[in-house]
Amino acid sequence: MSEERTDIASLGEFGLIDHLTKNNETKQAGTLLSVGDDAAVIDHFGRQTVITTDMLLEGIHFDLMYTPLKHLGYKAIAVNLSDLYAMCATPTHVTVSIGISNRFSVEALDELYEGIYAACDKFNVDLIGGDTCSSQKGLVISITAIGEVAPDKYVTRSGAQKGDLLCVSGDLGAAYIGLQLLEREKRIYLENPGVQPDLQNKAYTVGRILKPEPRADIISWLEKHDIKPTSMIDVSDGLSSEILHLCKNSDKGCILYEEKIPIHDETKETALEFNLDPTTCALSGGEDYELLFTIKQEDYEKITLSEQISVIGYMTEASEGANLLTKGGNKHKLIAQGWNAFSTEKNS
Amino acid sequence: MSEERTDIASLGEFGLIDHLTKNNETKQAGTLLSVGDDAAVIDHFGRQTVITTDMLLEGIHFDLMYTPLKHLGYKAIAVNLSDLYAMCATPTHVTVSIGISNRFSVEALDELYEGIYAACDKFNVDLIGGDTCSSQKGLVISITAIGEVAPDKYVTRSGAQKGDLLCVSGDLGAAYIGLQLLEREKRIYLENPGVQPDLQNKAYTVGRILKPEPRADIISWLEKHDIKPTSMIDVSDGLSSEILHLCKNSDKGCILYEEKIPIHDETKETALEFNLDPTTCALSGGEDYELLFTIKQEDYEKITLSEQISVIGYMTEASEGANLLTKGGNKHKLIAQGWNAFSTEKNS
Repeated sequence: MSEERTDIASLGEFGLIDHLTKNNETKQAGTLLSVGDDAAVIDHFGRQTVITTDMLLEGIHFDLMYTPLKHLGYKAIAVNLSDLYAMCATPTHVTVSIGISNRFSVEALDELYEGIYAACDKFNVDLIGGDTCSSQKGLVISITAIGEVAPDKYVTRSGAQKGDLLCVSGDLGAAYIGLQLLEREKRIYLENPGVQPDLQNKAYTVGRILKPEPRADIISWLEKHDIKPTSMIDVSDGLSSEILHLCKNSDKGCILYEEKIPIHDETKETALEFNLDPTTCALSGGEDYELLFTIKQEDYEKITLSEQISVIGYMTEASEGANLLTKGGNKHKLIAQGWNAFSTEKNS
Repeated sequence: MSEERTDIASLGEFGLIDHLTKNNETKQAGTLLSVGDDAAVIDHFGRQTVITTDMLLEGIHFDLMYTPLKHLGYKAIAVNLSDLYAMCATPTHVTVSIGISNRFSVEALDELYEGIYAACDKFNVDLIGGDTCSSQKGLVISITAIGEVAPDKYVTRSGAQKGDLLCVSGDLGAAYIGLQLLEREKRIYLENPGVQPDLQNKAYTVGRILKPEPRADIISWLEKHDIKPTSMIDVSDGLSSEILHLCKNSDKGCILYEEKIPIHDETKETALEFNLDPTTCALSGGEDYELLFTIKQEDYEKITLSEQISVIGYMTEASEGANLLTKGGNKHKLIAQGWNAFSTEKNS
């Protein structure tokens, strides 16, 4: 963070908005009107619009002790775009609303927006509006992302059929392990501020929690290979929870093979350091922002061409339930043990 | 509020979303996919999409000591729709994100959503998605509203021409007076909880702050009478601040006649009880959610047909500045003294 500190109050609300959006360039031909009016205007040329929204609250979704603001801004956009890719849509626009307290300087906000704009640039998305207001305590970020899709080409959670193959992109559980590492270093630092953080050889897992990348590449690959998933969801709450969503919305059951779940070597090794089972981290960890989807069996050969996609199971009748087949050959009912915002919360 | 209390934790995040959206019916033919997937899908039939977003934070934008949750939900939608009407757009969809702490019961959230759905019903808008998460402290509401407009029929802040007439709907300053009344009753209550609130004959002003109505009727009226404003903005921060926005964005100056500013009798009387100048309340009070717009002089005769619209001044060259002509015949520079979120905030 910069040494300089400009009080937010010195700019005023409108000055702050001007400041934060002065370098905001629109990239989409359809952006007729962007930041600076009551609302934004988008022309659609006959395509369908897809909209998603996510709120991130300090102390709940992120801890500023170990989250650089630039990464936070990038991640806030990334997790919304991930929801759009999970519909097979192409992100086009975002709105960003921020609630901040006076403890943030303009320089700190600039860092946050640097990350926001970096993600917008990378994924070719226009920032078209938002709201900036003060909060009594803590940072609040609320983002709405808008995308487009050719008529009726979007993919929902409800289209999986019996026999469809269950697939997932990338690998799972790393973000959860990254979070454990950051929490451990925070505890050590709070006990002894002289100790330097020890995150050597942990770049992959820490990177996964701090700077997740939405899988635009998977959507392009599927399109290029003419594979239309029958159902899809992004992995934000943990594999178990997301599989159960697909099963419930599609009214199907499934078999998930433990041995097929993709887990990075660094995740496995670090999980063991924490006495955690790597499979449990993948099933319940969350924040991976990979794509979980089902395809028709006839697409199996094509799917194997991608090193970024693993076939991890298949869909069954709903009456058979959602099951995990372990490496030891046992069958367990899948249960959602992912992040539950409300039961873990302290009373306040 | 209901006597019953169901812990939010007992429902879980997904149970809570199901609970809050179980009665959510879509009304727009273009709503292809609504709540319950990664994102919502809207078909546009070749019309242009207009998007706006607003965040409301407890302790900054509302005080739950005197704001019924149902009214708050209604208002949260209303202020977003007001931004769309200020573009001459027709609202079609909203997303609602909520951050809540455990001190809220499910019944309390139901009340909030009752207001949200009441506003959606009244203005024929679909709630198509959102996010619900826990907050460490305080209620956070973030809404994105989407509307449509026939190609290139939207009205911006930047189209005012020299000689155009400056108009405003309804009356101004009442919401600010309503807020003063509620704050006064809160102070009295905190000093002596036995005293009953005295808001007799204050229904209009108190109603204006608690349950503002976006001016859909004005947009319909203008359309029916074939009047297209040359520029428009909604009055959220006070008349002065909004006039200065129109002047700045249109690169014009203006003359505003103090005697023409519409102020309700109850506002005038109550302002005097508080030793406040009614004109100052109108200029700097804010939260009126009326429409401020400019029209061509040739539309003057038609505008006088509406009892809901006042002509309050006219636009000049930018070099002449934005001026208030007082009842006493003096000319003052207009300055924005409206709500400034940052300079009035306490350090935290």
